Amino acid sequence: MIPNTLAERYASAAICKIWSNRGRIVLERELWIAVMKAQRDLGLDIPREAINDYEAVKEQVDFASIRRREFQLLHDVKSRIDEFNALAGHEHIHKGMTSRDLTENVEQLQVYNSLRVLRTKVAASLIRLTDKALELKDILISGRTHNVAAQPTTLGKRLAMYAEELSLGLKGLESLVDQYPARGLKGAVGTQLDSLTLFEGDEDKVFELERRVVAHLGMEKVFTNVGQVYPRSLDFEMVATFFQVSSALSNFAKQLRLMAGHELISEGFAQGQVGSSAMPHKMNSRSCERINGFHTLLNGYLNMTAGLAGDQWNEGDVSCSVVRRMALPNAVFAMDGQLETFLTVIDQLEAFPETIRLENEKYFPFLGATTILMEAVKAGAGRETAHEAIKEHALATVRDLRSGRKSSNDLLNRLAADERLPLSSAKLEAIFLDEARLCGMARQQVDRLAKCSEDVKARYPEAIHYRPSKIL
Amino acid sequence: MIPNTLAERYASAAICKIWSNRGRIVLERELWIAVMKAQRDLGLDIPREAINDYEAVKEQVDFASIRRREFQLLHDVKSRIDEFNALAGHEHIHKGMTSRDLTENVEQLQVYNSLRVLRTKVAASLIRLTDKALELKDILISGRTHNVAAQPTTLGKRLAMYAEELSLGLKGLESLVDQYPARGLKGAVGTQLDSLTLFEGDEDKVFELERRVVAHLGMEKVFTNVGQVYPRSLDFEMVATFFQVSSALSNFAKQLRLMAGHELISEGFAQGQVGSSAMPHKMNSRSCERINGFHTLLNGYLNMTAGLAGDQWNEGDVSCSVVRRMALPNAVFAMDGQLETFLTVIDQLEAFPETIRLENEKYFPFLGATTILMEAVKAGAGRETAHEAIKEHALATVRDLRSGRKSSNDLLNRLAADERLPLSSAKLEAIFLDEARLCGMARQQVDRLAKCSEDVKARYPEAIHYRPSKIL
Amino acid sequence: MIPNTLAERYASAAICKIWSNRGRIVLERELWIAVMKAQRDLGLDIPREAINDYEAVKEQVDFASIRRREFQLLHDVKSRIDEFNALAGHEHIHKGMTSRDLTENVEQLQVYNSLRVLRTKVAASLIRLTDKALELKDILISGRTHNVAAQPTTLGKRLAMYAEELSLGLKGLESLVDQYPARGLKGAVGTQLDSLTLFEGDEDKVFELERRVVAHLGMEKVFTNVGQVYPRSLDFEMVATFFQVSSALSNFAKQLRLMAGHELISEGFAQGQVGSSAMPHKMNSRSCERINGFHTLLNGYLNMTAGLAGDQWNEGDVSCSVVRRMALPNAVFAMDGQLETFLTVIDQLEAFPETIRLENEKYFPFLGATTILMEAVKAGAGRETAHEAIKEHALATVRDLRSGRKSSNDLLNRLAADERLPLSSAKLEAIFLDEARLCGMARQQVDRLAKCSEDVKARYPEAIHYRPSKIL
Amino acid sequence: MIPNTLAERYASAAICKIWSNRGRIVLERELWIAVMKAQRDLGLDIPREAINDYEAVKEQVDFASIRRREFQLLHDVKSRIDEFNALAGHEHIHKGMTSRDLTENVEQLQVYNSLRVLRTKVAASLIRLTDKALELKDILISGRTHNVAAQPTTLGKRLAMYAEELSLGLKGLESLVDQYPARGLKGAVGTQLDSLTLFEGDEDKVFELERRVVAHLGMEKVFTNVGQVYPRSLDFEMVATFFQVSSALSNFAKQLRLMAGHELISEGFAQGQVGSSAMPHKMNSRSCERINGFHTLLNGYLNMTAGLAGDQWNEGDVSCSVVRRMALPNAVFAMDGQLETFLTVIDQLEAFPETIRLENEKYFPFLGATTILMEAVKAGAGRETAHEAIKEHALATVRDLRSGRKSSNDLLNRLAADERLPLSSAKLEAIFLDEARLCGMARQQVDRLAKCSEDVKARYPEAIHYRPSKIL
Repeated sequence: MIPNTLAERYASAAICKIWSNRGRIVLERELWIAVMKAQRDLGLDIPREAINDYEAVKEQVDFASIRRREFQLLHDVKSRIDEFNALAGHEHIHKGMTSRDLTENVEQLQVYNSLRVLRTKVAASLIRLTDKALELKDILISGRTHNVAAQPTTLGKRLAMYAEELSLGLKGLESLVDQYPARGLKGAVGTQLDSLTLFEGDEDKVFELERRVVAHLGMEKVFTNVGQVYPRSLDFEMVATFFQVSSALSNFAKQLRLMAGHELISEGFAQGQVGSSAMPHKMNSRSCERINGFHTLLNGYLNMTAGLAGDQWNEGDVSCSVVRRMALPNAVFAMDGQLETFLTVIDQLEAFPETIRLENEKYFPFLGATTILMEAVKAGAGRETAHEAIKEHALATVRDLRSGRKSSNDLLNRLAADERLPLSSAKLEAIFLDEARLCGMARQQVDRLAKCSEDVKARYPEAIHYRPSKIL
Repeated sequence: MIPNTLAERYASAAICKIWSNRGRIVLERELWIAVMKAQRDLGLDIPREAINDYEAVKEQVDFASIRRREFQLLHDVKSRIDEFNALAGHEHIHKGMTSRDLTENVEQLQVYNSLRVLRTKVAASLIRLTDKALELKDILISGRTHNVAAQPTTLGKRLAMYAEELSLGLKGLESLVDQYPARGLKGAVGTQLDSLTLFEGDEDKVFELERRVVAHLGMEKVFTNVGQVYPRSLDFEMVATFFQVSSALSNFAKQLRLMAGHELISEGFAQGQVGSSAMPHKMNSRSCERINGFHTLLNGYLNMTAGLAGDQWNEGDVSCSVVRRMALPNAVFAMDGQLETFLTVIDQLEAFPETIRLENEKYFPFLGATTILMEAVKAGAGRETAHEAIKEHALATVRDLRSGRKSSNDLLNRLAADERLPLSSAKLEAIFLDEARLCGMARQQVDRLAKCSEDVKARYPEAIHYRPSKIL
Repeated sequence: MIPNTLAERYASAAICKIWSNRGRIVLERELWIAVMKAQRDLGLDIPREAINDYEAVKEQVDFASIRRREFQLLHDVKSRIDEFNALAGHEHIHKGMTSRDLTENVEQLQVYNSLRVLRTKVAASLIRLTDKALELKDILISGRTHNVAAQPTTLGKRLAMYAEELSLGLKGLESLVDQYPARGLKGAVGTQLDSLTLFEGDEDKVFELERRVVAHLGMEKVFTNVGQVYPRSLDFEMVATFFQVSSALSNFAKQLRLMAGHELISEGFAQGQVGSSAMPHKMNSRSCERINGFHTLLNGYLNMTAGLAGDQWNEGDVSCSVVRRMALPNAVFAMDGQLETFLTVIDQLEAFPETIRLENEKYFPFLGATTILMEAVKAGAGRETAHEAIKEHALATVRDLRSGRKSSNDLLNRLAADERLPLSSAKLEAIFLDEARLCGMARQQVDRLAKCSEDVKARYPEAIHYRPSKIL
Repeated sequence: MIPNTLAERYASAAICKIWSNRGRIVLERELWIAVMKAQRDLGLDIPREAINDYEAVKEQVDFASIRRREFQLLHDVKSRIDEFNALAGHEHIHKGMTSRDLTENVEQLQVYNSLRVLRTKVAASLIRLTDKALELKDILISGRTHNVAAQPTTLGKRLAMYAEELSLGLKGLESLVDQYPARGLKGAVGTQLDSLTLFEGDEDKVFELERRVVAHLGMEKVFTNVGQVYPRSLDFEMVATFFQVSSALSNFAKQLRLMAGHELISEGFAQGQVGSSAMPHKMNSRSCERINGFHTLLNGYLNMTAGLAGDQWNEGDVSCSVVRRMALPNAVFAMDGQLETFLTVIDQLEAFPETIRLENEKYFPFLGATTILMEAVKAGAGRETAHEAIKEHALATVRDLRSGRKSSNDLLNRLAADERLPLSSAKLEAIFLDEARLCGMARQQVDRLAKCSEDVKARYPEAIHYRPSKIL
């Protein structure tokens, strides 16, 4: 058999359990049993012993037998009805139900349970990323725009950008879980006709049956006006929310890969890991590359769910079936794998302060240009004269560095030696020693983030100590 | 000049105004003026007269002059700085600002203002669609699954499905507007260094300046940790929210197109409209087709913004620039055009109750099969005997209809004539006269929707009487 | 284990074999052996016995052992090298190779073999669809634009549209197979350095080694300038080609679903199939819906490969790895599943000529309006008078039909009774009896298609009798 | 009016001309005239003077008048028919034609003419990129995998990778132009009924009319079996082909942006360009970022056309209309803008050989590790002893460099000083002096590419001297 690669290689055990074929069959059977119990309580003639008999066999899952039935009937749900009935020796399940009363609700249950698992991991990611930002908030680093050194920032502040973006994703995920509506027991075209007939026109019983079934699912909201299926824009919303979470993680990973190219940081190595058999110096950002790969996958699953939303005909059909069979679990697996990978990387991440300092030395004279200008003016130089002098020397320095005539940035020496600028070497170097000044409000910004992280800890105490499984 | 087709043909005047080139230039100049005023209030030496001079020329927009500058400088913002300075005869704008302090905030302002306009139209769409669902809630119609008649529903209930889906989109849009964070004045790499230098290290003034500028923009939230640019997943979230709204409208439009193919409904015609010069009987669902076209467009803009989210390098660059120049306004135009089109269609929509009734007559005997069975059993027939009889006749009827041997569905006559079934013609026909029974809970479901619509009216009184412009 | 649903439920045995985990391991080992043989022939000191020992164990695949190794090394290829070496008791494989010399070529081999299998099925689809178009080319049917009856066409011509579209897809697929270039043995950064070192700078041997390996793979083309990986736009091209093929099949399926809604055609039922347990008259287009579902999936896989193309850094990395692990096999499975489903449907497809005739009767008077006009003028009426008369009656007829006042289209009677039109009932009816005239060049167009199909048969004789496996 | 930003800012004059509103109106009128002439030649009673009158006014385009008509008729083609007739004072155009006979063919003409323009630019890009690769083929540079130095390559070889990828895109574009089929004059549902009626059933004249019209369009192929519209998968194929071309250019641009971050290369500056007003040292890769932006746009337009392909109902409708109005011209503008930008960059590109050399010095000792090992063994060392020694020193060197204890890579000194390795400093340094050896077959690979470029020059002599317009 060909395995699902995402599940097999990257998803966690908790998520795989929710989406296993076996698990799904059992969830379906539990739903049927919950419906029977409620129907019996509400007056239908279903013997308690029959329900017990169903209960007794609900874990007996024989895929070969189900498949044989399906190849004959060409109807997947009917095959599973017949199998369960045959095992229990009764025919009481699925009364007043259409196939989608079963499958929509069970799939939503898988989604809902997954969302709750993933929410904890997003919270854990936000907490851990914030902790790392705080830990590194004082390490000055050359901020880059257009991938070229621009102005100083701090390494912690850099990470804080991704944490703040991630906090938006968490909000989206929380809102999705809170608002997630079950389709409920709505029948073949959504009018609850068969439930109503079953209860001889008693509307209260129809509502009560649905209420109990939704309570069994554990969700708090339920649709009122649907057809045989719920609107597929809800599936789209799920993957769009994943993609927003993934955007923050993907930005982080791309940032790390870029910095690793300058040897400023590394995603770290596990004990015993082989980087490259031939090149012992290599420390590859393989996990961050994978985080970016998951992002590309999620975009693909987003596209699939977008292809279903707004393309529903009448009360429903199965043109969405093969798409949702793939897109829903795989989007969950990709999101889960990405979070597990991120949580592994964030704990192993290693910064190289000395390499960072060397890069700063190379670029900082440029990056402090506006500050130097102001100091020169304060010290008595004319503004335009000073500006011209600085520009002249800066351009000459770039030229010398690029052509290899100089190996380090000597702009400050040049400026100190220029009589137009009344600034001594000591004075000039002092500017670059006042790191608190150079990095602007970077530290204060990170501190503000910390408060947001404290909120998250309070809401998700289980996230504080969540640790990812060992990843491949 | 080649016009933007979406704006020219489909978007409303209110939205076009927000996104016009002229309007944007003025918004930028107003932002510069707001910054100068705040800077002056906070102690910077900017003469009031200079600000007045800028105010005086802010509406003088000379595109040719700006373009000439840009072709020389190859820097769009610098061209507009020089132009505004030249017009005013000062050089006080853009102090302590980087280009993106201007452009990010102005683009967000355009987005934010658009979102508020669109929110009203989504509310109006929900209100009007609900009204139509209520108006049509009693018209029985053959519900379809797999595009084949399945069970009865009502026309109003059918529309209510799309209204309920739309209500989810409205929630998403409301949440986006409420949470939408401005990037604020963060400087070249997000550390607010230049603001801090400008105010000689006075952090309070840095915060206060930003607070005032965000207040000028009219937004309530502001990012803390960003780089030169805000996270592009926010743009993605905007288009994803549009797409969710669009999914409901697109489902509605597809439904109407399918029903129009059976002549059950029409999107209506304006006075003087030409359907087809050759074929006078044609009433094409051209506007609903267009609604679906907008949905496809929005999916494309979603793809564009998805391509930016999670692909940001360091503190920012302009790889997103050409993409956002296209995707942001055009996504807004497409959403706006779709809403205007929908609002036009929903008011013109015409149902054909007699054609619907004829279709019902053709299919209802089938669709009531389960109800007939129950009545037969109540009247004394054995359940299995009755089931076998019904099935036999149903299949024979289908065969006769498909082969053309019969032109109308005579299943009830066949059943009445069968001695195995103790049901008279009158009795059988009575089942199909009790429409309240056949459509299950459809009416009650629509009534529940009405409450949601009342809420929306209370929140958006301006939406109640909103009417779309005349569309092409 | 969670299975790959696409492979398990929809893909054919031939395709699953190519992509099985086991199969892949063996393909890798065969590549290593082919490399060793070529290296030995070209002078490297690799004992023939060692090669024999590798050959002897190449089918011994122990996944658990490989996985244990990978969890320690965190390097998938290294795990498989160690495993194969341990089994054979030698260390001669992978000489002068980098991981991607193995994996790129093996994945391309899986792709290439899949493409050839799929090409046959596309050819078979084109042949069978053309046959069906020829079979049905004389059945007049109401052609529809805007989903509303417009002018007559024939059922065969309608299918021929999709066959002609499919022929473009086949051309694309043929071109892809013919041009498909192997990455070859290019080493760590594409310079073939290690091969060159291995052969002591002998360039001819480097070329010859690669030539032999590519011959082992069975491909005809090979890249010259690549890095560690081949350009991912090649993967994109593959899925784009699939999508083009899929577009034709998806159009066909949507057409059938629409026609099934009017009971003009059915995708057919297998013996023993259950349509719906409750509604015996239902004949659902479930397989055609699935064909559309595969199309949506392929769009998602297209999106994934598009996300990799043009986003490659330097000579390569593994950010594409998890994406290609999912997108490549699953795109193949989806394409294969769609073709198998289509081939099943096209053979079972059942048209209902009588229902079609009834629909024609209803619409034909309208659809022949322009022809009637010409005949009236020929018979002596003034053109404008005749046009006015026809329009008047046509509009009144539509009104009566829609309002239920009439149940069949009596336009011809009305026209015959109008003194302004010198056309008798007989004359008018004669127009609609001349079917050869009403359907324009439809038949001749289908005949032209037949020639294209004959070409395909000549090129792919194996496609003529290809029959799909039984589908779920 | 809101302009089309892509056209206004980025597309060339040649392309804008093809897609201007005015140009399109004239193309339509020319098509109508071509049809009239052919119809007259084939015997229809159309006076030569009338045709002359149409000819005389075909350039008189009054948009306001057309728009007024459209707002009344709600039918865009009918408005333009009425306008042209009113101008000429006749009613002879559009005989036997449906709207789509006009619009499909004119849009295809715009596409086809664009494809030929773009083909030349792709050819020019390939030629110029190959020239640059040849020019730089001897500059050794550190090849990178996982964004980390891996093995030596040459700068020219690096560019050659993208040239070879681009050559695949060119092939795709050539094949598209060669095979591009016109829809032709097929009438309302594709059966050519009205043409046939017009020529009183004379099939030869129907074919001849279409042949002449396609000849007027300048295309060589024509569809046989279409409906009112041609298959939208053809539009998809166009954008997919653009995307393949774009993938090569986008890879190039990303490569340059990465290298610019290491100051190894620059995309160059135009005279007078302002990098950043504050930071005089900055040389931003703004144009390469834009090239990547165009790639993201093209992916969006691909998504739009993919949304149409395979979603066509019956013989056609206008759900594709608004999508194609945006996606077709904008995809062409984006492709054009990207090519113009690339052609600008490739000519301005500046490599910094000294910075490259300095980076090489830093990394080459690592990158030659395997070669050193072989030399040590040849000189008498035991292989395992030598391997252990090299690994030991390599890891220590990395550690020292990263921690800042060393500022340059002194691995060779360490190896020379180690008694386990019988290699002198001179011997070790000699390895790195033999650049021809270190870069493997890189140079030969580039030379092979040159042959492909010569072929392209022969086929597209006009491409050799093509120069882009000045870009913003």
